[in-house]
Amino acid sequence: MKEWTMESAKQELMALQRKMAAYEHAIGLIYYDGTTGAPKETAENRGITLSILSEEVYRLGTSEETVALLEYLDAHKEELNEKEQRMVYLLLKDIREMQKIPMDEYIAYQELLVKADDVWHKAKEASDFEMFRPILEEIFATNKRFAGYIHPDMDPYNHCLNQFEEGLTKDTLDAFFGKLRDSIVPLLKKTQEKPQVDDSIRYGHFPEAKQEELSYYLMEKMGLDLGHVGLSTTEHPFTTSLGSHLDERITTHYFEDDFVCSMYSVIHEGGHALYDTGSARDLAFTVLDGGTAMSIHESQSRFYENIIGRSRAYCKYIFPKLQELFPEQMEGRTAEEFYLAVNKAEPSLIRTEADELTYSLHVMIRYELEKRVMAGELEVKDLPAEWNRLYKEYLGVDVPDDKHGLLQDSHWSGGMVGYFPSYALGNAYGAQFFAKMKETVDVDACIEKGDFSPVNDWNREHIWQYGSLYTPAQVLDRVLGEPFDAQYYIDYLTEKYSEVYGL
Amino acid sequence: MKEWTMESAKQELMALQRKMAAYEHAIGLIYYDGTTGAPKETAENRGITLSILSEEVYRLGTSEETVALLEYLDAHKEELNEKEQRMVYLLLKDIREMQKIPMDEYIAYQELLVKADDVWHKAKEASDFEMFRPILEEIFATNKRFAGYIHPDMDPYNHCLNQFEEGLTKDTLDAFFGKLRDSIVPLLKKTQEKPQVDDSIRYGHFPEAKQEELSYYLMEKMGLDLGHVGLSTTEHPFTTSLGSHLDERITTHYFEDDFVCSMYSVIHEGGHALYDTGSARDLAFTVLDGGTAMSIHESQSRFYENIIGRSRAYCKYIFPKLQELFPEQMEGRTAEEFYLAVNKAEPSLIRTEADELTYSLHVMIRYELEKRVMAGELEVKDLPAEWNRLYKEYLGVDVPDDKHGLLQDSHWSGGMVGYFPSYALGNAYGAQFFAKMKETVDVDACIEKGDFSPVNDWNREHIWQYGSLYTPAQVLDRVLGEPFDAQYYIDYLTEKYSEVYGL
Repeated sequence: MKEWTMESAKQELMALQRKMAAYEHAIGLIYYDGTTGAPKETAENRGITLSILSEEVYRLGTSEETVALLEYLDAHKEELNEKEQRMVYLLLKDIREMQKIPMDEYIAYQELLVKADDVWHKAKEASDFEMFRPILEEIFATNKRFAGYIHPDMDPYNHCLNQFEEGLTKDTLDAFFGKLRDSIVPLLKKTQEKPQVDDSIRYGHFPEAKQEELSYYLMEKMGLDLGHVGLSTTEHPFTTSLGSHLDERITTHYFEDDFVCSMYSVIHEGGHALYDTGSARDLAFTVLDGGTAMSIHESQSRFYENIIGRSRAYCKYIFPKLQELFPEQMEGRTAEEFYLAVNKAEPSLIRTEADELTYSLHVMIRYELEKRVMAGELEVKDLPAEWNRLYKEYLGVDVPDDKHGLLQDSHWSGGMVGYFPSYALGNAYGAQFFAKMKETVDVDACIEKGDFSPVNDWNREHIWQYGSLYTPAQVLDRVLGEPFDAQYYIDYLTEKYSEVYGL
Repeated sequence: MKEWTMESAKQELMALQRKMAAYEHAIGLIYYDGTTGAPKETAENRGITLSILSEEVYRLGTSEETVALLEYLDAHKEELNEKEQRMVYLLLKDIREMQKIPMDEYIAYQELLVKADDVWHKAKEASDFEMFRPILEEIFATNKRFAGYIHPDMDPYNHCLNQFEEGLTKDTLDAFFGKLRDSIVPLLKKTQEKPQVDDSIRYGHFPEAKQEELSYYLMEKMGLDLGHVGLSTTEHPFTTSLGSHLDERITTHYFEDDFVCSMYSVIHEGGHALYDTGSARDLAFTVLDGGTAMSIHESQSRFYENIIGRSRAYCKYIFPKLQELFPEQMEGRTAEEFYLAVNKAEPSLIRTEADELTYSLHVMIRYELEKRVMAGELEVKDLPAEWNRLYKEYLGVDVPDDKHGLLQDSHWSGGMVGYFPSYALGNAYGAQFFAKMKETVDVDACIEKGDFSPVNDWNREHIWQYGSLYTPAQVLDRVLGEPFDAQYYIDYLTEKYSEVYGL
């Protein structure tokens, strides 16, 4: 066995992480390319490359030498600083999980996900769930099987939740969602009894080129460094880091008849990108680079999208730019009309376009469904019918087809079972962070001037710079100094919608 | 040492090549991304990933196990089929060359090239040779050093030529270019004494979106499978395969005041893509996939661009599409005017936009310069002055700045010293292939109808399907059944330009 000194072991720890980051760069870019520029019939070609690179990553991560290195460092952890300790902890945790999955199954799953992305796109386009069903069955089955390998004593769905936020359980979420539902459903009911908000300002003809100009404007103004953050278009918007936070990409999807969709997508993904690129420089090319759990990530993206982006102050600030880009459509309109339009509460079919009030209901439906599939209480083949039934029950809407139903999201096709709750938790975390931020920052005054620095500085100081150094629970604890409480979010929604609807 | 059976060794041979193809996919895509979608300040990030992946490729290619495998197969080559024999030969040749380069120098060179691409872009934009000079000096110095490692007994520039076409020497090229110059220079002189062709049809305002529509039309009609061949925009057009010929990308650059530039770029790169994607399916993920030497590659790209694309038959065929896309600009114009415009012979500054007649003179200048730098007869710092002097001497034009001079091409920044002659050789090979093709195919009749199949079938049957199975010399021999003779090309040019200019 190799002999290390602390110094050489620490150097190897950094080299190992740089190598992992390089593979992640390559693999991430191949996925990104698949959703952006790649010709349509090239998924199989990408699949072959990805299966080989995944195997290389697997071998690298689980090699005897890697394990020995990390165990050596773990045995000497009192000589490591806080960051190094956390690196070793996260790497060992990953390796121990990976070692429990047979290599051929791990690689087969990577290949399955490449195929799934391609088939999902085609199935969504054709609105044909049957085309996607066999693959979705395999994805859920694999998630169950892997859960059994990694956490044989844990409930399989709790295992999935753990992948995105350590320690999260369905008991916690049942309570959280229960509390949300008890507040949101009556609040929504009250808004629907009032005269509806006029949101005609968002509809018309908005050429893609003008919307793209708006995207770059929004990105720059919210404080993104465009030298390191790129924008592209995809079917489903997302954010990804390539290699490190020094190369960040966000995507959006333009609809020429409604500019608001892409506008808030860009702000949302821009929030993710602010968080990632806000990591301290010395975290680049380490496992601590970029944000910690997805719920904290969503707390940032949804904070910028909603708490900032749909505030009256922001609407007032951005309206002159909208008038400049879309002079005909904005003719005779006001910033106040725009503010009301983007805060219209209306039960609808598509999660990513949902208003703040109904949004968590969309999440709850997905949570219920994946929880029940993972528990074996619901079969994949029955998902569309259940989806449609719950949309009717929670939101009162009829789902016309699977394209506007079950096939709308890319998460399951990407293997991300257990991700959805992060959105709702993120909303709630964001509201509580906001309350804290307002103790020292006059947010409205800054935003109305278009000055994001005090807001970004607060987030950078308290959240971004640490990357994944702290767990979500530690982040909450450090930032808030009090326990997480969904009541902040409920109060925020109640106050906002009471005002918008004059309740 | 590992024990093989022929069967297991052959399986490992294929697995090795698949793995190499996967790394090439990743590395190729990272370069491609760097020239297409990547944010501007991300070159350093890409450089870190590329240096790590290059190191992995280097280790894979030169590992004891790989060498032992290939030597085992080489020792049993009578049991291999023609394709396997060629794979083993090419892989061993590469490895033996690679083994002669110290790993740290190999990796440092990969990093240098990433940086070079970035700096070249910026230097070109700023038309500032001094910005690029130190890197170009290092590139030439590295090429000389590597030439010494690999072929210590060979002239360093001959080594460079060998990288792109085995067996090619400066003696051969001096004779070839001498013969070309002796014919082209007087022919060009005669055309310049005649009244000039009116090429105003190509200038005006041609919106990028319309030109993009034209690009896809050209690609589809020339027989490219758009499910496997993508189009993007870059500073300098190029073609690349990602992983295999099943995912091919071409790029172009649009100028809104002149649609002809991009149009013929697309046909040129489309010719490369036809050749690559025409490899037999079983060559995918092997070293035989895609075309053999760059001269044969250029014979295809320049065949489609010029011999086909600038023929009267093609101009007649494509003109109605131009009228449809650019109705105002084509108002009152004729296909014959378009034909004459794209065949105007005029000494100019930019190689990629040069007409067929002057094109080889641009190549000769680059050949002269790199030959002399590699021989130590010319210093990199003196390149711009020499460049400008030769443009005056060969073409009679004054170079106003380095952007329109030395900084126009990406080849040297990409480390490709010795590549340029391939363009001129390709022109000449293409003319001789064309003469052969016409023995059995009525090319003009096909093209006038827009039916590329007989032409493509001939090329596929004689050239494309074999990928790199044969050397360029073997390809010429198999296709032509007679020695290569530059006279075909000279006759082709003489006939065409005599007709266009009524000499």
